[in-house]
Amino acid sequence: MATTGTDLSRMREMNQLSIVWALRGGPPSTVTELAGRAGLSRPAVDVLVRALVGDGWVEVEEPGPGSVVGRPARRYRFRADAGHVLGVDVGVHKVLAVLSDLEGDVVRTLRRPVDPEAPPAARLSEVDGVIDDVLRSAGMTPAEVWAVTVGVTGPVDAAGRTSLSTPLPGWTEADPVAHLAARFSCPVRVENDCKLSAVAERWKGAAQDADDIAFLLAGLRTGAGLLLDGTLRRGHGGAAGEIGALKAVRWITAPDHLRNCPGIPAAAAPGEAAAWVFQAARDGDRDARTAIRRYTRDLAVGVAALVLTLDPQVVVYGGGFSRSADVLLEPLRRELARHCLRMPELRASTLGDESVALGAVRLALDEVDGRLLSDRLSAPTAPRR
Amino acid sequence: MATTGTDLSRMREMNQLSIVWALRGGPPSTVTELAGRAGLSRPAVDVLVRALVGDGWVEVEEPGPGSVVGRPARRYRFRADAGHVLGVDVGVHKVLAVLSDLEGDVVRTLRRPVDPEAPPAARLSEVDGVIDDVLRSAGMTPAEVWAVTVGVTGPVDAAGRTSLSTPLPGWTEADPVAHLAARFSCPVRVENDCKLSAVAERWKGAAQDADDIAFLLAGLRTGAGLLLDGTLRRGHGGAAGEIGALKAVRWITAPDHLRNCPGIPAAAAPGEAAAWVFQAARDGDRDARTAIRRYTRDLAVGVAALVLTLDPQVVVYGGGFSRSADVLLEPLRRELARHCLRMPELRASTLGDESVALGAVRLALDEVDGRLLSDRLSAPTAPRR
Repeated sequence: MATTGTDLSRMREMNQLSIVWALRGGPPSTVTELAGRAGLSRPAVDVLVRALVGDGWVEVEEPGPGSVVGRPARRYRFRADAGHVLGVDVGVHKVLAVLSDLEGDVVRTLRRPVDPEAPPAARLSEVDGVIDDVLRSAGMTPAEVWAVTVGVTGPVDAAGRTSLSTPLPGWTEADPVAHLAARFSCPVRVENDCKLSAVAERWKGAAQDADDIAFLLAGLRTGAGLLLDGTLRRGHGGAAGEIGALKAVRWITAPDHLRNCPGIPAAAAPGEAAAWVFQAARDGDRDARTAIRRYTRDLAVGVAALVLTLDPQVVVYGGGFSRSADVLLEPLRRELARHCLRMPELRASTLGDESVALGAVRLALDEVDGRLLSDRLSAPTAPRR
Repeated sequence: MATTGTDLSRMREMNQLSIVWALRGGPPSTVTELAGRAGLSRPAVDVLVRALVGDGWVEVEEPGPGSVVGRPARRYRFRADAGHVLGVDVGVHKVLAVLSDLEGDVVRTLRRPVDPEAPPAARLSEVDGVIDDVLRSAGMTPAEVWAVTVGVTGPVDAAGRTSLSTPLPGWTEADPVAHLAARFSCPVRVENDCKLSAVAERWKGAAQDADDIAFLLAGLRTGAGLLLDGTLRRGHGGAAGEIGALKAVRWITAPDHLRNCPGIPAAAAPGEAAAWVFQAARDGDRDARTAIRRYTRDLAVGVAALVLTLDPQVVVYGGGFSRSADVLLEPLRRELARHCLRMPELRASTLGDESVALGAVRLALDEVDGRLLSDRLSAPTAPRR
């Protein structure tokens, strides 16, 4: 049977990719080490890795003077700084941008408060400002960014628009993809904040060992994001995880139990009120503990709806309230056990409020991998839309 | 770069598989046709297809006397009867077995009623009897069956056991895999009935065009099965789709609205009572229409929980009540629209009560494909556990 030229060139490309995957995220390696890891012959790896150096995906680490007999072997490393990606969290109260290299190491982070009432144009202008400043501080231009992912509150459709419901004022009028496309020629994507947080928890957070994950973004609002088999579930129209919209599950009113707890200082803002209740509960305050019990009782109905629908391995409790997981997780676990046929593990988020931007970075890296490092291998350069 | 002998033998196997896939489910084909479909050269396909005939996967259809100039080309067909699989539905009231060939065409079907109160040993003995009879009628022995899948009511764990809850009396004591392993040396699998029905609806039913599907098994009990990206979701412990266990969604009591409808003949059995209500509604009876409105109102809360969690493309209304979809679907759609952010398509099942056994056949075929027709190609013989 004939092996065609196309087959061979395809096989060479696959082998080049396996070298890139073997180098990325690992220490600098010798040809012998790479041959072992990729299951290829040394001479083949030698040819492949030289081509990768020529293209710019890989760089040589020349050996220092050897202290043992014979010349130490040359090592090769993946050029993580061949490109960069941006993850941006557009929240009600803040804009947060994270610049990362191709290995997912964070290069720069910049956060700036936004007026919660800001209309879309003003909010997008803040986004522009934060992106400009984070790139400037890294000495980079938009042309050097390979992918941008933006997280927003509320369900997002395939075009990056928000049409069903959102707490961002006027945001159904916004077209963030079109707005950012004016300055970025690379792929720009918009995704729901809870979904991005779920991705981040599996990447760098509390659920790195799990494939089936329900993530809760818990604060004055409650949302959910789902990963199954390690893959983000968007839903057919981008509205997966929106169980909180169902009145029967009481997520909309659950935080009222915290707001209405007796003893909260009159001057406390809504966010401060919840923090006061959590601290009071730590200090043994009965009213605070009752408020938490009622909050978790109502929250548990919606969590149980997710669990009974999907039977995930892990539920991650994240978002602003997750800083107080010490007083929330046990009551939530008890309430949840009353509803579930099979209890998942309940864990607190370890990423705090950077989870949305980190998940955005992860999706941007996936975009780069999908275009440059999966099907075929091009020279390293910013992908275009 | 060298192409090793292992690479070439692997490539040959992949090419053989692509020929099998190109033949299966299609009409008998010539070498030229196959070469076009599989993207291989004619000489290569000629070698591959002769080897497949030698192994027994493919058979030759000799051309008849040509009516045109020249000798007509030989055609090849996949040997669908090289092996068979069994799908068995073990319900509260019946056992139903479906015997199918390797193309999924049904060869024999046998249904027998079971005492709803039958304990596990008696129920398994009925299963044995139905399987014996369906095989005997086809002139086959258990050794000729390549995979068996059994559907039961209630969540099923990875070992095929039912531990969380089940309406089959005493079934938590049953070990159907071990029981059937006594006579079948091929793989035996047990799965939840709603999950199997969902699989069947995508294979041969109402949702062949969809990838993200929520299936409702609606009758005196209500259950759900989920497919995402065309793949059955079992959940981490086999309990996906069990939203009906959540009291807040009222699935357990929803059918009571039908049972309690005024005017039902006193002698009617529970199943007949519902059928009476559906017919009365068709005839314009106000009480019957009210009962249906209340039933669908309560059902819709749980369906909305599924929809808001997963945002599927299609919801299939199946199970015993789906025969009356003409009076149920519109009220259900109206109620559902009150809860959902994005409405899925709502469709009635087209498979009736064979859906569980058909889904079992599909999983059994997947088992065969996974073992014989995906990674490597062996000669056609019943796979062993």
